[in-house]
Amino acid sequence: MRMVDMIAKKRDGKELTPEEIQFVVNGYVSNEIPDYQMSAFLMAVYFQGMSHAETAQLTLAMASSGDRIDLSTIDGIKVDKHSTGGVGDTTSIILAPLVAALGIPVAKMSGRGLGHTGGTIDKLEAIPGYRAEVSEEEFIRLVNQNKLAIVGQSGNLAPADKMIYGLRDVTATVNSIPLIASSIMSKKIAAGADAIVLDVKTGSGAFMKKFEDARLLANTMVEIGNQVGRKTMAVISDMSQPLGNAIGNALEVKEGIETLQGRGPADLTELCLVLGSKMIVLAEKAESEKEARELLEKVMKSGEALQVFKQFLAAQGGDVSVVDNPEKLPKAVYQIPVASPENGYVSAIKADEIGTAAMLLGAGRVTKESDIDLSVGVMLHKKIGDRVHSGESIATIHSNVQNVSTVMEKIVKAYRFSKEKIDQIPLIRG
Amino acid sequence: MRMVDMIAKKRDGKELTPEEIQFVVNGYVSNEIPDYQMSAFLMAVYFQGMSHAETAQLTLAMASSGDRIDLSTIDGIKVDKHSTGGVGDTTSIILAPLVAALGIPVAKMSGRGLGHTGGTIDKLEAIPGYRAEVSEEEFIRLVNQNKLAIVGQSGNLAPADKMIYGLRDVTATVNSIPLIASSIMSKKIAAGADAIVLDVKTGSGAFMKKFEDARLLANTMVEIGNQVGRKTMAVISDMSQPLGNAIGNALEVKEGIETLQGRGPADLTELCLVLGSKMIVLAEKAESEKEARELLEKVMKSGEALQVFKQFLAAQGGDVSVVDNPEKLPKAVYQIPVASPENGYVSAIKADEIGTAAMLLGAGRVTKESDIDLSVGVMLHKKIGDRVHSGESIATIHSNVQNVSTVMEKIVKAYRFSKEKIDQIPLIRG
Repeated sequence: MRMVDMIAKKRDGKELTPEEIQFVVNGYVSNEIPDYQMSAFLMAVYFQGMSHAETAQLTLAMASSGDRIDLSTIDGIKVDKHSTGGVGDTTSIILAPLVAALGIPVAKMSGRGLGHTGGTIDKLEAIPGYRAEVSEEEFIRLVNQNKLAIVGQSGNLAPADKMIYGLRDVTATVNSIPLIASSIMSKKIAAGADAIVLDVKTGSGAFMKKFEDARLLANTMVEIGNQVGRKTMAVISDMSQPLGNAIGNALEVKEGIETLQGRGPADLTELCLVLGSKMIVLAEKAESEKEARELLEKVMKSGEALQVFKQFLAAQGGDVSVVDNPEKLPKAVYQIPVASPENGYVSAIKADEIGTAAMLLGAGRVTKESDIDLSVGVMLHKKIGDRVHSGESIATIHSNVQNVSTVMEKIVKAYRFSKEKIDQIPLIRG
Repeated sequence: MRMVDMIAKKRDGKELTPEEIQFVVNGYVSNEIPDYQMSAFLMAVYFQGMSHAETAQLTLAMASSGDRIDLSTIDGIKVDKHSTGGVGDTTSIILAPLVAALGIPVAKMSGRGLGHTGGTIDKLEAIPGYRAEVSEEEFIRLVNQNKLAIVGQSGNLAPADKMIYGLRDVTATVNSIPLIASSIMSKKIAAGADAIVLDVKTGSGAFMKKFEDARLLANTMVEIGNQVGRKTMAVISDMSQPLGNAIGNALEVKEGIETLQGRGPADLTELCLVLGSKMIVLAEKAESEKEARELLEKVMKSGEALQVFKQFLAAQGGDVSVVDNPEKLPKAVYQIPVASPENGYVSAIKADEIGTAAMLLGAGRVTKESDIDLSVGVMLHKKIGDRVHSGESIATIHSNVQNVSTVMEKIVKAYRFSKEKIDQIPLIRG
């Protein structure tokens, strides 16, 4: 086989065989195929797409290009959740103990990553003492003991995906559904998931701005899961405004704890219940999503989920007392209210603008090497459909610097107002 | 400017500005833009094409990426000819003295290149003593003196084209009309042509198998010429069978001399008169192609063209006596007839198969480093429309090895026969 023939085949819209896909991935990882051939291939994929069979094969080839986490010594069906990323998304921290409280093992490896705020691991590090770096053996022991462990990504998972993603980033080939889908799924499979629930975001704050693109991505990933023998379900959820009210690491942990206590924002609570119901059905702990939801509401109300969260925290060195005393979380020096410039109803909140505001405060990383400030962020007090009066506080900036004029301006510009009453946008889109 | 944005712009089908095209070419030549970004860009061009303005700008940027030959000290309009390459194409050797005999300066730089036979320079080297390597000063002096010089390409002409072509070759992006057109035109412009006549081949032996593609390529190159201020005309000629009867270096030189003497094959003679007429019109030595053709026929008949050829040869060290004694050209040891397997009419001769047969005999280069055998090749005795009897000789193999069974099989398979009388295919297609 010659790579130039693989490029030509894809360029001409023909379907590559499993052996050909394997040849491309293996050749690239072993440096026998140079970057310049791979990037031409990726651009051909951008234009010609990939069949479901090709995408599944690409996923498997990338998943098996490096270490694979072996979760077989953990009893039960290991269900993982993945979100395509939005603003203010604290679902992982809430879902993990909720689901674990129903006896489903949650062996979660999370990243730090770049973005408006840190990743799940960064957020949890707002809790004093919490250790993310544990060995694979301890990780498995903790899951068997508490049904729940959340640790930093270790090992060399899906290096092919890492290499290919790096190349896509600089060759304008990121935005391709089969490439996005196989990238996400390869990491989940390498991390050992038996079943996967996907939360695909759509709207202004999401990577997939258009609903149709989000649906196509969701379908593609579910199809990959089916083809590679991992039961997969997907939810398409709205990200045309930030999820919940908190954007920032410690702020989101606090909101996550409140949600576990049943006092969280309606949209965040609802999304957790919807995603959790699917996880529970996939783990075969309920026959229907309706039954699953009732189980979840029960462990939320009874405090069992919160108890699991405390056990998990204690086992990984975290200060459990923050759960009842959230003032022990890192706190920014200044709390500065943002006043509404108008009378009326909130008609839109550009989620990516709010995310950028949080990033400017220091809540997220600009480059891999950036430090992040766990204490800062934005709390929203008004969301789409809410009535506001001119001068009323619509949000609070949590900052460690006093001059926040740029950030404030960004937040005010992210809000749109209407004189008419506005309907709420449905959270679950598909 | 960032290259990733240029790739995305082209990927999305938008038109790049002249500054952006210049940025891409300059960045690539100076190694600031890596191969992997350039190849993604080229694949995006493959799918999205380029506007005439973009193609013209790409041509200019590549033409000015290295040395440019300055022909300004030669009086008159310098008209160059370019063929997209076929099998048995000896037109350059015939056209150059024909046109020069009418007082038009022909300052021709030719390549060696890969292919079924050598390039024009290789062919001329079949004439004992001929020197292709002359300095730029001597080149210009020779043209001023004899109106004609044909020399090997010197200097670093259009290095951007060389680099980009090399990358296209290994990334399946060769077959793109704007990239082919700009590659050809950039070299002609760097070589100093004031006006250009293009011979775009179509048919089985040509790079552009389909007439529509050939027409699009011809139109694109004429458009580039107009945009960059070089008067350009194009002919689309048939290459569904080899041009003329000779395929091989010394064999083609002999055929070229016979054509200059008015005794050449009808198709080769006709193509030279058609291309020559356009060159003469572009050089403003005739008002119409009809008038130009009459002038060409006159200098062919009178022997003036042959006289110019002899002068040119002598000036570049060649043995002039070969013109009247062609047996002095390198001659293969064996002449082996190929017998027709059928009775009937020749209906097709796959030009590329005949070309491959010549290459197998050693007439062409497989890699840049290959030696070529100037004496070997194939002479065709029957062409499309000719009546043949079973066992009659349809071609002669000129070989320096006795066993030519593979070559003979290739030639027999290249021929197609019909019981019905076959019309000749028109040589000039557009």
